[in-house]
Amino acid sequence: MAPEAKRGEERNPFLYSKVVDGLKKLYKKNLQPLEEQYLFHGFHSPLLSEADFESKPTVLLIGQYSTGKTSFIRYILGRDYPGIHVGPEPTTDRFLAVMHGSEDRVVPGSAATIQPDKPFRGLARYGASFLSRFQVSEANCPVLEDFTFIDTPGILSGEKQRIGRNYDFTGVIKWFAERSDLILLLFDAYKLDISDEFQRCIQQLRGHDDKVKVILNKADLVSSQQLMRVYGALMWSLGKVMPVPEVVRVYIGSFWENEYVNQDNAALFDQEREDLFTHLYGLPRDAAVRKINEFVKRARLAKVHACIIGHLKQQMPAMFGKEKAQAKLIEDLRTEFLKIQRQFHIPAGSMPDVEKYQEMLRDYDFRKFQKVNERMIANVDKMLSKNVAALMEELPSSSSLPSSVAQ
Amino acid sequence: MAPEAKRGEERNPFLYSKVVDGLKKLYKKNLQPLEEQYLFHGFHSPLLSEADFESKPTVLLIGQYSTGKTSFIRYILGRDYPGIHVGPEPTTDRFLAVMHGSEDRVVPGSAATIQPDKPFRGLARYGASFLSRFQVSEANCPVLEDFTFIDTPGILSGEKQRIGRNYDFTGVIKWFAERSDLILLLFDAYKLDISDEFQRCIQQLRGHDDKVKVILNKADLVSSQQLMRVYGALMWSLGKVMPVPEVVRVYIGSFWENEYVNQDNAALFDQEREDLFTHLYGLPRDAAVRKINEFVKRARLAKVHACIIGHLKQQMPAMFGKEKAQAKLIEDLRTEFLKIQRQFHIPAGSMPDVEKYQEMLRDYDFRKFQKVNERMIANVDKMLSKNVAALMEELPSSSSLPSSVAQ
Ligand SMILES: Nc1ncnc2c1ncn2[C@@H]1O[C@H](COP(=O)(O)OP(=O)(O)OP(=O)(O)O)[C@@H](O)[C@H]1O
Ligand SMILES: Nc1ncnc2c1ncn2[C@@H]1O[C@H](COP(=O)(O)OP(=O)(O)OP(=O)(O)O)[C@@H](O)[C@H]1O
Ligand SMILES: [Mg+2]
Ligand SMILES: [Mg+2]
Repeated sequence: MAPEAKRGEERNPFLYSKVVDGLKKLYKKNLQPLEEQYLFHGFHSPLLSEADFESKPTVLLIGQYSTGKTSFIRYILGRDYPGIHVGPEPTTDRFLAVMHGSEDRVVPGSAATIQPDKPFRGLARYGASFLSRFQVSEANCPVLEDFTFIDTPGILSGEKQRIGRNYDFTGVIKWFAERSDLILLLFDAYKLDISDEFQRCIQQLRGHDDKVKVILNKADLVSSQQLMRVYGALMWSLGKVMPVPEVVRVYIGSFWENEYVNQDNAALFDQEREDLFTHLYGLPRDAAVRKINEFVKRARLAKVHACIIGHLKQQMPAMFGKEKAQAKLIEDLRTEFLKIQRQFHIPAGSMPDVEKYQEMLRDYDFRKFQKVNERMIANVDKMLSKNVAALMEELPSSSSLPSSVAQ
Repeated sequence: MAPEAKRGEERNPFLYSKVVDGLKKLYKKNLQPLEEQYLFHGFHSPLLSEADFESKPTVLLIGQYSTGKTSFIRYILGRDYPGIHVGPEPTTDRFLAVMHGSEDRVVPGSAATIQPDKPFRGLARYGASFLSRFQVSEANCPVLEDFTFIDTPGILSGEKQRIGRNYDFTGVIKWFAERSDLILLLFDAYKLDISDEFQRCIQQLRGHDDKVKVILNKADLVSSQQLMRVYGALMWSLGKVMPVPEVVRVYIGSFWENEYVNQDNAALFDQEREDLFTHLYGLPRDAAVRKINEFVKRARLAKVHACIIGHLKQQMPAMFGKEKAQAKLIEDLRTEFLKIQRQFHIPAGSMPDVEKYQEMLRDYDFRKFQKVNERMIANVDKMLSKNVAALMEELPSSSSLPSSVAQ
């Protein structure tokens, strides 16, 4: 079964992009003005940038050389990506972020770290020798509307690897792992051993256990009985290396476009692929849900913040005694918060921490605050109840939405 | 495939019994007189008893309740054994040694520990409450000519088990493990968890890792994909629990007389069973080889020992100065050893440790020693080169015999 077939059936194409584009527009139009007017960034987090919206559900592939990482990506894309190398010897010699672009091109690592619409600024800290081993491969390919894939150099065993590498490999793995939605560890029927460096990489994934899945690739190249031995040996050593009690999910099969060599387990491999694809193509929806969730939380917080700042401004005397009035307002902030809650019908649980605000407010001059802008706040309310709700409807099954979004 | 078929083809029935009976006769006729005459037991080990010859290749079964331990034994025997209980609830409530007997009967635990022809004397130390939970089931069944099976009560999880048991369960497991040739840990597709007590049992098996094999039973009751999950989960937790790097061999299948419910993996299960049977039916041969090996080593040592004692006796003066002569002989033992070596054509490597003998000889009165008995020694030589060699020929493939035997 070609991945196309699967994609055609169950995948909701561009779902993630649609949602995120929608949120970006709503943010610029309704939320950003409010955040700017009431100095949201000073109290909470900076304005959202292009890159905050642009980072897509990311799949990180890690494994020994020649286990089929690059072939896996090609299989999912249904085509080559710029700068692709596939071969039985160690081939991929760098980290590659395979991303969507309007045309096929390669962006070298250092350049990629300064592009404002790419989430790679943080990689600069790994130095020039790493950046010379990092590139962005842009391809105009529909799958990449919803995903970014991180292809990595195969892990070698023993001394060999250290010779070529003069950068912090496991550090880089950790950086990408933190920013990925799915981390695939690839093994194949002939490459099961977990070298020291591989083990260090796996240890870097601690805390991301729910994102880690394993692929036992090329499973069609061995007999059923051999496969059981191979698979058993893999689980045995993964059990020793991974510090969690829950069994990691291993997908057994052959993840490329060719026919199975040994057909004995074809039905199993097909089911395994289906399960993996279901998980994979569920990621954009999950990520979209998460983005909406965060967006709603942020919008509610920005609104409450605006009410607080606007209210405080309105409590200031018109002419004299401003400093004293400001000090008193900070001191009595708990009472003011109660007034704000009542006036704007804010649930008690949605009010921020009084003491933190007392702390932060000391750095401001209340005279420069803006009054409550009823129209702006109404806009945010409308955005949440109408536009964001409409985006939510795009998502396949709203029954499983987190409660904060579904309410 | 019924186990009968398999046994008919490849098994050399009674092989083990034949070899051991042969050795026993040879021992009584040729070696024991020599050992007695030259006080071998005082310098090395006691005379061999009936029980030393009688203990057969032993298979110990351990596992959660209802994983099919008892059914496995019944399957191999091709019949019930006295006192058998099979059922889905915890059924086997005691340790059962299933052994050969001229007729079917049950010997209670305490009685079994005092039978001279049974190797269970050592179990007395586990006390009366254990012995009331131990029995020997004798059955007149051909398989039992070559094997003893130890059926054990199913391991329960949590508190349940401790209530019923007022003896040292893991201690008993350890005792049997030391005396077994094969230790089978049984799991089934629905009972994978390794309880605390089970884990303690597995830890008792440390040092016997080469004897431990695992059975994943009832594998035909689940789908292929479920089986992979189940098997993977088992390997994962075994990897965590077993303290060795080498992957333990797991035999996957259904080990009883019934047809497979799910036929999808029939070929795999058949192969797995064949592998297990090959290993199992290889045990008597391996054990026979080991017995022969030990017997040959013992006979050579006894012969050398007889030469030493006889030689020393012959160096003693006929009348006066015996004590001084004995002291001098002990002091110059290294020189005497060289003489003995030359006189009896003993390879240097086969002479025992001089200092140990010096130590031990001090406790003896050389006057009471016997002279060298050429005929007795010739008998032992002949026994080795003719009779033991003939027993060796009974063994299927002498190419893989240990060198000490094959020479
Ligand atoms: N599912 C598969 N079955 C059999 N062979 C495969 C499969 N996937 C890839 N291969 C072959 O394995 C070799 C390695 O593939 P590939 O270059 O994709 O691996 P890689 O993990 O990216 O290696 P590296 O770490 O060196 O970049 C190639 O010869 C490829 O054709
Ligand atoms: N290979 C098998 N496939 C399916 N069912 C089986 C198989 N072997 C045994 N059973 C069933 O499982 C149940 C438990 O079997 P059995 O009594 O042999 O297990 P046990 O390990 O000896 O249990 P206990 O520890 O309680 O003595 C019985 O109902 C038996 O019929
Ligand atoms: Mg590659
Ligand atoms: Mg039982």
